Amino acid sequence: MADGDATSEYERILAENARYTEAFDGSKLEAAPLSGLAIITCMDARISVEQALGLRIGDAHVIRNAGGLATDDAIRSLIVSQELLGTDEVIVIGHTYCGLAGIDDDAIATRLASRTGRRLDLALGGFADVEDAILASVERLRTHPWIRRVPVHGLLFDVRTGRLTEIA
Amino acid sequence: MADGDATSEYERILAENARYTEAFDGSKLEAAPLSGLAIITCMDARISVEQALGLRIGDAHVIRNAGGLATDDAIRSLIVSQELLGTDEVIVIGHTYCGLAGIDDDAIATRLASRTGRRLDLALGGFADVEDAILASVERLRTHPWIRRVPVHGLLFDVRTGRLTEIA
Repeated sequence: MADGDATSEYERILAENARYTEAFDGSKLEAAPLSGLAIITCMDARISVEQALGLRIGDAHVIRNAGGLATDDAIRSLIVSQELLGTDEVIVIGHTYCGLAGIDDDAIATRLASRTGRRLDLALGGFADVEDAILASVERLRTHPWIRRVPVHGLLFDVRTGRLTEIA
Repeated sequence: MADGDATSEYERILAENARYTEAFDGSKLEAAPLSGLAIITCMDARISVEQALGLRIGDAHVIRNAGGLATDDAIRSLIVSQELLGTDEVIVIGHTYCGLAGIDDDAIATRLASRTGRRLDLALGGFADVEDAILASVERLRTHPWIRRVPVHGLLFDVRTGRLTEIA
């Protein structure tokens, strides 16, 4: 990308990273997560996974997507996590005020079609109730043929208070 | 989940979260990321996205999967990020010593089949070269019909030094 196209946010990140490397030493970190945990949660900007869960660098795999759902791609990631890197426990974390709660897939598909001329042929994953969505993801992982029979927890993160509540 | 099944790691996380809520105040945070950034990166435990990029809570969407690839599910998440929450810039971050570099999908599929009796019918996403994988993800996003024509950057994260290098 030409310098002329770079935004101030992108430039800021590169500058912040240069500062980060001054103190960072990853020479003793291994790929296998120290805690044995794999976390699946939402991409939401208000969730700082490491801070909210007290995790340090090297502790856990963190899989994030819109909604924090156990999608096929999250299953793919979890197979890699379990089979190659030995994690043995899963925590699914949904959250309050999620952008996917109550969205109308159809309205968004129509908007995209009118802008791009191509009809959206994938489900965006919207759900009516976040606790039900968490339960469905937990259930899918607990019964999936390629996921190991390890503990699978379901938690709800409150973006206002930062509190985790056990759902499953 | 019954208390008897809870591991010490899970219990520790709940205790850490209780401490977290004592100081956390999310009442002023909105769902729309303040920086307008959506980050796609690997689930790898050695990548602390917020720290390595100097991001604060509320700044950016963070999409993570095995490899940090622009999978169909990452595209789904990005559509939600752009259409519902207004992000207008994407950063794809691959990393050195990735678990997916050079893996043999077939060997893992065979192992899973022998343990579960069911043949794996999904690609794990293994790649030969991480820089090529980053370029492929960036190119997919730059040309995808449902992704907006916004800046898409590709960076390589060195897990030993913490340094980001521009790839695309």
